[in-house]
Amino acid sequence: MFENKELTDIAELGEFGLIKHLTDNFKIRHETSIKGIGDDAAVLNFGEKEVLISTDLLLEGIHFDLAYVPLMHLGYKAVQVNLSDIYAMNGIATQITVSIGLSSKFPLEAVEEIYKGIELACNKFNIDLIGGDTSASKQGLVISVTSIGYADKKDVTYRNGAEEGDLLCVSGDLGGAYLGLQILEREKLVYLENPNIQPDLEGKDYIIERQLKPEGRRDIVDLLAQMDIKPTSMIDVSDGLASEILHICEQSEKGCNLYEEKIPIDPVTYETARELGLDPTICALSGGEDYELLFTIKQSDYPKLKNDVDISVIGHITDKNSGCKMISKSNVVHTITAQGWTAFKG
Amino acid sequence: MFENKELTDIAELGEFGLIKHLTDNFKIRHETSIKGIGDDAAVLNFGEKEVLISTDLLLEGIHFDLAYVPLMHLGYKAVQVNLSDIYAMNGIATQITVSIGLSSKFPLEAVEEIYKGIELACNKFNIDLIGGDTSASKQGLVISVTSIGYADKKDVTYRNGAEEGDLLCVSGDLGGAYLGLQILEREKLVYLENPNIQPDLEGKDYIIERQLKPEGRRDIVDLLAQMDIKPTSMIDVSDGLASEILHICEQSEKGCNLYEEKIPIDPVTYETARELGLDPTICALSGGEDYELLFTIKQSDYPKLKNDVDISVIGHITDKNSGCKMISKSNVVHTITAQGWTAFKG
Repeated sequence: MFENKELTDIAELGEFGLIKHLTDNFKIRHETSIKGIGDDAAVLNFGEKEVLISTDLLLEGIHFDLAYVPLMHLGYKAVQVNLSDIYAMNGIATQITVSIGLSSKFPLEAVEEIYKGIELACNKFNIDLIGGDTSASKQGLVISVTSIGYADKKDVTYRNGAEEGDLLCVSGDLGGAYLGLQILEREKLVYLENPNIQPDLEGKDYIIERQLKPEGRRDIVDLLAQMDIKPTSMIDVSDGLASEILHICEQSEKGCNLYEEKIPIDPVTYETARELGLDPTICALSGGEDYELLFTIKQSDYPKLKNDVDISVIGHITDKNSGCKMISKSNVVHTITAQGWTAFKG
Repeated sequence: MFENKELTDIAELGEFGLIKHLTDNFKIRHETSIKGIGDDAAVLNFGEKEVLISTDLLLEGIHFDLAYVPLMHLGYKAVQVNLSDIYAMNGIATQITVSIGLSSKFPLEAVEEIYKGIELACNKFNIDLIGGDTSASKQGLVISVTSIGYADKKDVTYRNGAEEGDLLCVSGDLGGAYLGLQILEREKLVYLENPNIQPDLEGKDYIIERQLKPEGRRDIVDLLAQMDIKPTSMIDVSDGLASEILHICEQSEKGCNLYEEKIPIDPVTYETARELGLDPTICALSGGEDYELLFTIKQSDYPKLKNDVDISVIGHITDKNSGCKMISKSNVVHTITAQGWTAFKG
């Protein structure tokens, strides 16, 4: 990536120089950002709004593999993953802090690529970068992002508000990010065996983009507000549909019926799953990283969103004793189990 | 540390189980903490207060060496380092998020030790743990803490408010944390050469505690409020007195005169520096990690604090063109340079 360029040793800049260098182009957009980078802490002021805070830690070798994740995409995704959590509260994200640990293998130009991705995400989603920390790392790349947002008290949507009879809805489509990852990993293995073979990604653009460049669904938060719908519960799909449904049902002390045939799956996702000998529904249930919004609404709100092509009604909430069930295409009832999170396993 | 106990593999718990296990004992103390752990984001509400946010990333091998840092102390310090940034804004810290990346060498009992330290810091400083992220790590232990606090708008103290003639003040004493680290590193080398030799830490308790168990100076924030003093600028001493003075002068567009003889140095710090052939003043200027508060006040506020033994007046602010100077004990004038930050060097 940087073969023909003269590279800069980060040590030449020092920490403060590095932060200044990397963040000089970032503009402050929000009146709520009283003070950004350059003091001990950022200062925000939301007056009568509720303040939302979310944080994620991304580690090389666990959350990303630099063999196939371009650094700019990594920066972009690190921000999106975090914003998604604020949107999942039915809030508007307004600020982030970014801390990065860098091993000495990264020249300045590599860090700049990461920050280009961060800046792109900030520009696209109207976010102020207000602070952070930059450090050497003896091991690999570490990125920690904290996002801050706000909402009116009446609008904040928790995981625990689903009621019996509510409709279970999801934005966009599911399973694509997981299958994008499978393709990237397959091509990495091919490359490692023979570096002369070009990666075969033809026709896979959509799912690779789902993996490398996910987007938090702020548009859905805005859309729901326009439709005058306040979801009764909401969560983002980071670990897989099954895991997220179980969170909502557990915290709301309810059960649910999920209809397999209603789960939105893109044709490329579907075909790729079949190619790889995987069940597309399992990919949607357990794949994760789609960063779509899963939410419940009152039945009376159904007419407001029934014609929106970007939202699918995939089931409904039942009582706790009925459990969390999926009704398959062949009408068999399965109990939903979480398989979405495996980072500590194997 | 865990030799005689049966250890638990973290994988048995899964991420959500692990977070619940580690944070079940943490109480929510603040009315401003509307929603803590267990949703996509925490929800805070500060009404008319300004919200302060600060974040730090601590990496094994860079910020701490597990050869001599007990895990409980590490958890405690990770929190304190962050709270210190909120206090340095003249604010009250109220919440933290903690994200941890763990390599497979850490059993559950090790993580519990870290959280014991976090809990101790939360209890002592009245802090709510409201969120975070737990992940596997291929790289060693990674801890990212974000702290949140508040202050009345009129009380928030920035680095850029120092005026000519203001007095330069510092709390506590300086250089101890750095010399504690030197002793710990010396004893580690002795141990590596001959594991049968017991570490010789006699009489060094104070400086070792300064290194392993620093405390953010919330008491100074409270004291200044009681004395009805609003500092004109403030910063915490994380990188060393020299570096922090330069931050205040640069951001305030001022110069300063610092008097070497006024720099508060504890006798144990002084003697240890001499033993190791180091200049105690250089240790105070460049050592860092003391987490004391450096601040400037109007001369008219001097009578209010002149009798406080925990605050030293160490110099005064001059105009920008006079530069940042230290007047030595032998009356030689030196230009102050930052040597406090070396993590990317060497």
